Amino acid sequence: MGPTLEDANAAAERIKAIAVRTPLLRSEVLDAAVSARVFVKAECLQRGGAFKIRGAANAIAALAPEVRARGVIAFSSGNHAIAVATAAKIFGVAAVIVMPADAPKIKLETTRSLGAEIVVYDRVRESREEIGANLARQRGLALIKPFDDVNVIAGQATCGLEIGEAINPDFVFVPASGAGLAAGVALALPKARIVAVEPEGHDDIARSLAAGAIQRNKPGIRSICDGLLSEQMGELTYPIAKQRFERVVLVSDAMVLRAMKFGFRNLKLVLEPSGAAALAALLEGGVDVGGATVAVVASGGNVDAETFARALAS
Amino acid sequence: MGPTLEDANAAAERIKAIAVRTPLLRSEVLDAAVSARVFVKAECLQRGGAFKIRGAANAIAALAPEVRARGVIAFSSGNHAIAVATAAKIFGVAAVIVMPADAPKIKLETTRSLGAEIVVYDRVRESREEIGANLARQRGLALIKPFDDVNVIAGQATCGLEIGEAINPDFVFVPASGAGLAAGVALALPKARIVAVEPEGHDDIARSLAAGAIQRNKPGIRSICDGLLSEQMGELTYPIAKQRFERVVLVSDAMVLRAMKFGFRNLKLVLEPSGAAALAALLEGGVDVGGATVAVVASGGNVDAETFARALAS
Repeated sequence: MGPTLEDANAAAERIKAIAVRTPLLRSEVLDAAVSARVFVKAECLQRGGAFKIRGAANAIAALAPEVRARGVIAFSSGNHAIAVATAAKIFGVAAVIVMPADAPKIKLETTRSLGAEIVVYDRVRESREEIGANLARQRGLALIKPFDDVNVIAGQATCGLEIGEAINPDFVFVPASGAGLAAGVALALPKARIVAVEPEGHDDIARSLAAGAIQRNKPGIRSICDGLLSEQMGELTYPIAKQRFERVVLVSDAMVLRAMKFGFRNLKLVLEPSGAAALAALLEGGVDVGGATVAVVASGGNVDAETFARALAS
Repeated sequence: MGPTLEDANAAAERIKAIAVRTPLLRSEVLDAAVSARVFVKAECLQRGGAFKIRGAANAIAALAPEVRARGVIAFSSGNHAIAVATAAKIFGVAAVIVMPADAPKIKLETTRSLGAEIVVYDRVRESREEIGANLARQRGLALIKPFDDVNVIAGQATCGLEIGEAINPDFVFVPASGAGLAAGVALALPKARIVAVEPEGHDDIARSLAAGAIQRNKPGIRSICDGLLSEQMGELTYPIAKQRFERVVLVSDAMVLRAMKFGFRNLKLVLEPSGAAALAALLEGGVDVGGATVAVVASGGNVDAETFARALAS
């Protein structure tokens, strides 16, 4: 059974001492650019630099104490890794993280610095899902899935709850891949029109909704959005997407780099590529939001200096 | 007569619909680096990208309506310019801004985009104070001073009031040049130990406090901290500095660049050099804050891409 608004409210209570209530930022330049009242939910200012701590902390908090005590495992390109390592440290349990070899250095280093054990895999030839499931079985670790879990989605939904406590958005632009965040935000904001944003070429959500069934991405597709490269949506997130995603906007690397520079200049935020994807879609995705109240989830800020410098030069 | 805590409270009321209540951000890496509980007051997320709107809006709001209607003038290296232009726009009055020719492009462009008339001068050979005073006289404009004004200091003090409503800091690290912000914050936080931070070589505050009288800087001294290059402190800020600045820390360009990179990596904030000066002083200034609660004012984020890229490469 899928997560409910009640699950989201329970998550908010559970994680309130762990996660940060991130600000909603305004920019006169942004408002003028899209002729709307725009509120940027700055999840890059979240603990660990991304929204992921919401879901990870809620999932780990919800484990039975004797299960949690055996430790947790996660597979992640980075931000879920940091989040699980952070939450595990807070709860005082061991964490094993399965990360792709080509994850951004900042994400690998941060995860390692939090005391987690890291298992590296090849994103093109191996399946992180299989590696994670096998390790969990062998060592008796609790698998904290990156998105397809009621408690993870409910945790991410707290981002939407916070938006809804401050404003009544007509639109919410939110990055989506496994779609835990986008599904959670949709759940928390039942009246908002959800615009899901995914990388060009990695458009399984658009294809899934068009086909009426979950579609996969071929492994090895490249995008600058390293946080938006899940193989496919989840069994729990797909039905929410089907019901609530009004539109799916695809963003190119160039659009994302320009949005990162826009965020640098006008919001004074460091956004990682995936964290700038929704802003890119708002600025260049062709959705008419004229006169509306718009929330944009700037989902994270864990980006290497080299990549950020590339955005500045774009 | 100098500003009082009552002036600060009145300012808070006057500007509450104009200025943003900026967040106090945490970082586990920062806490560990200085063995303290550190709260970063993120004024780079303020309207206009710096704390300056607080003082400018308060000063313009306090003008008699018939005076305000004739327009305002300001001289500024940038952030006060943006703030006065923004506040003038909100009040619907004209603004003339006297800016140095070598101000950061982002500050010149932003000020121009707000509809202000810009008068450029040579920072090495001319005095902005004289140019500003002359223009004010000739055109009947109200001069909004950058720091030596009761209402400006009271406005900047609201930054300190917000810190005090959230925490009880033992130390506050705050950048100082004209020292309107540092004096205001000192006023708002009567129990905190104020650490004022100024650029190496432009150390008039340290020299003034040592000499027991206001000292000037020679014109033409270079520092990456373009927002901290006032010729001297004000008649109103100096007595507050004398009474309350427990320490003055000098920061080099290299320290500031490293602090900007630290802010990029660990806070996900875009800090301009002046905005990173207090963080630089906390990280490398040799002040022992072990076990203390520390506030650091990250005063602004208006920095050109080229300068930020330099920090990323440092």
